Amino acid sequence: MNTMINEGLVAEHNAKLQANLDADYAALAGVLQRRGQDIEQLTALAQTFAVAVPTWGAGTGGTRFARFPGVGEPRNIFEKLEDCAVINQLTQATPAVSPHFPWDKVSDTAALREIAQGYGLAFDAVNSNTFQDQLGQAHTYKHGSLTSQSAAVRAQAVEHNIECIELGRALGSKALTVWVGDGANFPGQHNLRGALERYLDSMRDIYGALPADWNIFIEHKLFEPAFYATTIADWGTSFACATTLGPKAKCLVDLGHHAPNTNIEMIVARLAQFGKLGGFHFNDSKYGDDDLDSGSINPFQLFLVFNELADAAEREGSTFNPAYMLDQSHNVTDPIESLMSSAVEVQRAFIQSALVDRAGLRQLQESNDVHASAQALKQAFRTDVSAILAMARLRSGAAIDPVACYRTTGYREARGVARPPKAGASSSGIV
Amino acid sequence: MNTMINEGLVAEHNAKLQANLDADYAALAGVLQRRGQDIEQLTALAQTFAVAVPTWGAGTGGTRFARFPGVGEPRNIFEKLEDCAVINQLTQATPAVSPHFPWDKVSDTAALREIAQGYGLAFDAVNSNTFQDQLGQAHTYKHGSLTSQSAAVRAQAVEHNIECIELGRALGSKALTVWVGDGANFPGQHNLRGALERYLDSMRDIYGALPADWNIFIEHKLFEPAFYATTIADWGTSFACATTLGPKAKCLVDLGHHAPNTNIEMIVARLAQFGKLGGFHFNDSKYGDDDLDSGSINPFQLFLVFNELADAAEREGSTFNPAYMLDQSHNVTDPIESLMSSAVEVQRAFIQSALVDRAGLRQLQESNDVHASAQALKQAFRTDVSAILAMARLRSGAAIDPVACYRTTGYREARGVARPPKAGASSSGIV
Amino acid sequence: MNTMINEGLVAEHNAKLQANLDADYAALAGVLQRRGQDIEQLTALAQTFAVAVPTWGAGTGGTRFARFPGVGEPRNIFEKLEDCAVINQLTQATPAVSPHFPWDKVSDTAALREIAQGYGLAFDAVNSNTFQDQLGQAHTYKHGSLTSQSAAVRAQAVEHNIECIELGRALGSKALTVWVGDGANFPGQHNLRGALERYLDSMRDIYGALPADWNIFIEHKLFEPAFYATTIADWGTSFACATTLGPKAKCLVDLGHHAPNTNIEMIVARLAQFGKLGGFHFNDSKYGDDDLDSGSINPFQLFLVFNELADAAEREGSTFNPAYMLDQSHNVTDPIESLMSSAVEVQRAFIQSALVDRAGLRQLQESNDVHASAQALKQAFRTDVSAILAMARLRSGAAIDPVACYRTTGYREARGVARPPKAGASSSGIV
Amino acid sequence: MNTMINEGLVAEHNAKLQANLDADYAALAGVLQRRGQDIEQLTALAQTFAVAVPTWGAGTGGTRFARFPGVGEPRNIFEKLEDCAVINQLTQATPAVSPHFPWDKVSDTAALREIAQGYGLAFDAVNSNTFQDQLGQAHTYKHGSLTSQSAAVRAQAVEHNIECIELGRALGSKALTVWVGDGANFPGQHNLRGALERYLDSMRDIYGALPADWNIFIEHKLFEPAFYATTIADWGTSFACATTLGPKAKCLVDLGHHAPNTNIEMIVARLAQFGKLGGFHFNDSKYGDDDLDSGSINPFQLFLVFNELADAAEREGSTFNPAYMLDQSHNVTDPIESLMSSAVEVQRAFIQSALVDRAGLRQLQESNDVHASAQALKQAFRTDVSAILAMARLRSGAAIDPVACYRTTGYREARGVARPPKAGASSSGIV
Repeated sequence: MNTMINEGLVAEHNAKLQANLDADYAALAGVLQRRGQDIEQLTALAQTFAVAVPTWGAGTGGTRFARFPGVGEPRNIFEKLEDCAVINQLTQATPAVSPHFPWDKVSDTAALREIAQGYGLAFDAVNSNTFQDQLGQAHTYKHGSLTSQSAAVRAQAVEHNIECIELGRALGSKALTVWVGDGANFPGQHNLRGALERYLDSMRDIYGALPADWNIFIEHKLFEPAFYATTIADWGTSFACATTLGPKAKCLVDLGHHAPNTNIEMIVARLAQFGKLGGFHFNDSKYGDDDLDSGSINPFQLFLVFNELADAAEREGSTFNPAYMLDQSHNVTDPIESLMSSAVEVQRAFIQSALVDRAGLRQLQESNDVHASAQALKQAFRTDVSAILAMARLRSGAAIDPVACYRTTGYREARGVARPPKAGASSSGIV
Repeated sequence: MNTMINEGLVAEHNAKLQANLDADYAALAGVLQRRGQDIEQLTALAQTFAVAVPTWGAGTGGTRFARFPGVGEPRNIFEKLEDCAVINQLTQATPAVSPHFPWDKVSDTAALREIAQGYGLAFDAVNSNTFQDQLGQAHTYKHGSLTSQSAAVRAQAVEHNIECIELGRALGSKALTVWVGDGANFPGQHNLRGALERYLDSMRDIYGALPADWNIFIEHKLFEPAFYATTIADWGTSFACATTLGPKAKCLVDLGHHAPNTNIEMIVARLAQFGKLGGFHFNDSKYGDDDLDSGSINPFQLFLVFNELADAAEREGSTFNPAYMLDQSHNVTDPIESLMSSAVEVQRAFIQSALVDRAGLRQLQESNDVHASAQALKQAFRTDVSAILAMARLRSGAAIDPVACYRTTGYREARGVARPPKAGASSSGIV
Repeated sequence: MNTMINEGLVAEHNAKLQANLDADYAALAGVLQRRGQDIEQLTALAQTFAVAVPTWGAGTGGTRFARFPGVGEPRNIFEKLEDCAVINQLTQATPAVSPHFPWDKVSDTAALREIAQGYGLAFDAVNSNTFQDQLGQAHTYKHGSLTSQSAAVRAQAVEHNIECIELGRALGSKALTVWVGDGANFPGQHNLRGALERYLDSMRDIYGALPADWNIFIEHKLFEPAFYATTIADWGTSFACATTLGPKAKCLVDLGHHAPNTNIEMIVARLAQFGKLGGFHFNDSKYGDDDLDSGSINPFQLFLVFNELADAAEREGSTFNPAYMLDQSHNVTDPIESLMSSAVEVQRAFIQSALVDRAGLRQLQESNDVHASAQALKQAFRTDVSAILAMARLRSGAAIDPVACYRTTGYREARGVARPPKAGASSSGIV
Repeated sequence: MNTMINEGLVAEHNAKLQANLDADYAALAGVLQRRGQDIEQLTALAQTFAVAVPTWGAGTGGTRFARFPGVGEPRNIFEKLEDCAVINQLTQATPAVSPHFPWDKVSDTAALREIAQGYGLAFDAVNSNTFQDQLGQAHTYKHGSLTSQSAAVRAQAVEHNIECIELGRALGSKALTVWVGDGANFPGQHNLRGALERYLDSMRDIYGALPADWNIFIEHKLFEPAFYATTIADWGTSFACATTLGPKAKCLVDLGHHAPNTNIEMIVARLAQFGKLGGFHFNDSKYGDDDLDSGSINPFQLFLVFNELADAAEREGSTFNPAYMLDQSHNVTDPIESLMSSAVEVQRAFIQSALVDRAGLRQLQESNDVHASAQALKQAFRTDVSAILAMARLRSGAAIDPVACYRTTGYREARGVARPPKAGASSSGIV
């Protein structure tokens, strides 16, 4: 296995923190034991957790107003893999990366896969891109891609998605995530129903190209880049389309793609109930699709999502296996730091949800003991499981404190030297 | 036909206004003719328009903080029918009323139907009530009705709905609208999926009792009275349930029951496309389920809803026939005035949507002429069709200006004498 | 001191739980010590915390659709005081009650004060009511109170507020909270500026009647009962009015009275900066003014509010002393249970905010270490301070687990016998 | 006067449409006369209307996901002025342009002014830019500009604003609009109060550099580019800052910069009442700061804003003179077409608001005739004043139908030849 960070540095870091961790872990073990819970089971469970990292997340994001580049940003998929390798090395919670085409397209896909494997990284769901025009592209997506009025544009978009499937097969992926920004900025711009009919036609062609063991994930988004009517705007549309397309089609829930005040955990419950929960793009937000770090704004909501996942897992058993990915935009932090701590936040919600005594909760609910039912969740959420997560990392060979360890390595500073920004690279936005 | 308002008064009112109306109508006819449109076709179309009035809308509404009673409010279904008769007499746009049980339950249902017929009124969709406890009721709905943990509560709620169907059959209705406020105020209060499973079980029993030519309408609502998780909260859930239940089950869209920023006209398009658009509860709102007068806050949105309905009607033909009802809460106006002018506002949107040259719009859309496509809708909406609506009323025997005519009749003042408020009737709210 | 709960029962409850508490407390002490923090200081701080309980909170709330009464609800201010006494006895965090007039008006105000003192309860801010009509009232508030077009109505509303001040003086209060529901349901219903001018005129009269050491709190609310335009709708209007009125006028922040997505903690920071932060009504919400239990929906937001309060306290010193009150509607829980656990949740946020190393945070912020700054708050919030809160209660003579203790006492069941519901009491709503 | 469009083409266009316009105008004159209103007064009023166009609006906008360039986009301020000249020539409603620095900075400012004057264009408020880094800039704004922790960064941002004032003086401007995107993406990232204190310090320096007859406009925005806490997020903060700074500081209302459900017309009324309404950035939106064409989503809201402006104008007289500017992002339309029709939409709302009989409305409001008050506004809004606007244009030398006329000229196609896109210009977004 290739490691980007000297293993000795990690060991040194852990050695310094282990005594305190042991003490914190013992303290928490006692608290849990007094509640009848076994910390070791939870730590073992934490070690099983995995969430994919998107390759594009390794770069610095921005808004339409501006992008402020970071130091040593990766300039291609190979450098992105280096950063993803760091993230997984220090957290042991992100063993797969999710590629995006054409951004990550290379001349030798097999070699790319080998390099990733060298870092211990697999490839998760493949992402297509028909929301931008690429240099040399025959037709523009200005007026839509899979929903375009033009058969030629739709064919180009379908063909690109099918190419993504082929690239994904070569990389070992098992799913294609389709997000389209198609929609309208004005009432009347297009026929709302006609656009969805064309979408379904295009998707049927893509669906037909899926290998037998693949899934296609439909990702909805309320708005942006379309500002009046987005064709796949809500879970209802996503669900109706996935149902229309067939069993390989499932719905993907991005936490930031909903109307204000939406109860997202209930959408999770609904999709699980109706057999269409495909996976997640984790992030957090306060206003729109803010793409902030997971759990940074409303950590209780993240916990409640995992509470529904725990409920579904208990009901469905091992066949219940939605895909997890971080999907964040890191505008003012080091992406590696944000992705590491975000992976930990998602893992935290996973472990907190495992603290819920589901049979006991069911009894409280059945007796309409509203107060006690609510407190059962609150107590699980209140429990500080940091020591469990840190111990799981230690035992898996990662860092007790990934960000602190990372900062000792000088990785970012070294990347600043190794990866000078492209000449003329603009940081200006699009207003 | 029994009329509540002296026909001579209506004629007198119309006589005073007709000259001006004729002039306004001729002016508009010219404007439309210069655009290639025939005003007479539009006036004839306006005369076909109908929207039902809910019996409870004839009373003054309120909030949890207070209710400020009006003068001469109807105290029972018979007095409500009197007011509904006035509304239809003066607008000729509201020939049906939608009853609510047990509020409108009487000892002799057949007699009730005859009285309504005497006023020229039919009965539209029947509404059940399992969001309140009635005096003498065996089980409380405090912890849910169709979704209750208790089989006995669910059975009571199912039985009530089946009774509503029977009452509706006796009244000539063809549909049952089911709105439940069931849900949770706390995360953990109930199992989100379990609640929907019980809902579906209960609904299957009700569905089984539907006559062959009936529909059941599922009405969703984002929140209130449940404030954390409403079981039937969005169109996605409504659609999944209607699909699960069968072809007689359809979705009902209340304009005020959506998350902020939701594109409601797109939900209309989706439900029409997937064959599940059952009907509407019309009203308007700025913040939540405000139940304000239709078209009073965002009239362009109402137009855009009818633009989708015109599109669906063109696609589906005569089989496309969703139910229309006003569902408003009149806290500070005379309910008769608000219902009359609201019926006219909905009719206005219907006629404005008929102004759209749909074939021409399609061409503009197909050529991606975004600006012209948008302006096609804006021009239709901008057109002041008041003279068409007034002429349609005049030709149908109603009043040119329903509210002005009503105010000349002294109807409300007379009702103030005839319907003294119940002794001890409280206006206090529920905080 | 009169106690509603037998002190022996409390002692017995505590005796059973103390060993576990001691162990949990020691475990947490160790964790904090390893971070350089002293648990004893935090526990002592927790013992100083106080939040007022509104008298009306002791009853079961409802919505416009229905109210489902609870068992043994208090029927008058004396019974409400009994319940408030229980809450404070078991939490020692709610030593004051906030009365509401005319609901809590009695013939002998001095006697009422003595009874409260007998329970160890003081009176916090007085609340006036001009959003409902009272039996026998000369003028209706249907069209506004302090903003009414009618001078007579305004005078009546002003007079009521001045009477509230007088009643408050007799009870030992030092502040009047003025919330008016005044506003419009329709564009055009009233002149937006004229309404605020009349409000300011009325408030000047009330302000003039304030004793020298009193404050008047202006409470804003985005909507409900007015659904188009609420006269005091946002903090901007509240602030402009408080500035216009003078130094005794301050702004009151109810957590549920804001537009979707509003950053409430920033409003707290702004009001503190400009010297106008009067106090809080604590509750939680997901959709509107849901009045749910504090911290039940978004506990991190509650923490962030207290993080701003800690910042302001550090800047302003002992003169910074905003009023704290719970303001919740308990529709499906026992109000005593909800108020006890809500007081604890607010206290929890207070102690968590005290965990923040403010000088260290400032350094991180000054060096633009965004990730570490954010984590500083997250770590404080993640810390489970339950053992500190329980130990503070134990040391102050309250219950280690207030709700569990309360449930052992049979208090509610006894109240069900002692307080039979009023005959004919309706649970029906206002639709 | 230099004209970009051959005046003969405009005359030819008008000649073709004038007969129909005369007929439509006569029809509307009759309708208005029957209501007691004089069309000629309204047409004369329409001719006085003016709204500024932002120079950057002439280019095609985009989102963080992508920008799809248009044909013949202006590449510098001189080409932008050409397009602005077209807009004003064909509408005679946009006689001023609002420049943005450093985007529009040229070596010879005086020459720039002369060129604009040659087109009959003046310069409106100057806009500064501290939300992006410019090539060669000493300090980055990544962590804030006027609010930065670094004195050097703040000084650079202040200096830039002062330079904007100087450039504006040279161009004949009388106001500086300051919008900063400063804020935080994470709770804890910065001290909320500290940031505003630094903002006020910086603004005091800029304020001190204002000429005697200048204003400074503070523009608030709820979110984006900052996604957790924007320093100038709402009108309350804007108002408090403008009050702190002094009489030359006023608040600017951009219609798209508010929380969901906000009643914007009430903010207009409040700022007018408290003497701080500086001006507007007009646009429309459905979800966030969508920057869609004015009046395209909620035209009734635009009317209600102008209804407040008419109220303020009546109260304040000629001293009431807020600045009007369009601020839109044209992602899928020809910017010239969108700006022309948007200017007309704003003018439409202005004229519709002039239809309101304000004295009559006041009487209805004073008698609490809610229904009639509401209808008074609805009737004004419903009136199709298109013929008035077209006649005003004809009489002022502009085009009866600006977009139709523009399309006959081949202007855009010619620009496509004259302004080839910069080599290597990227259309890719920032994700």
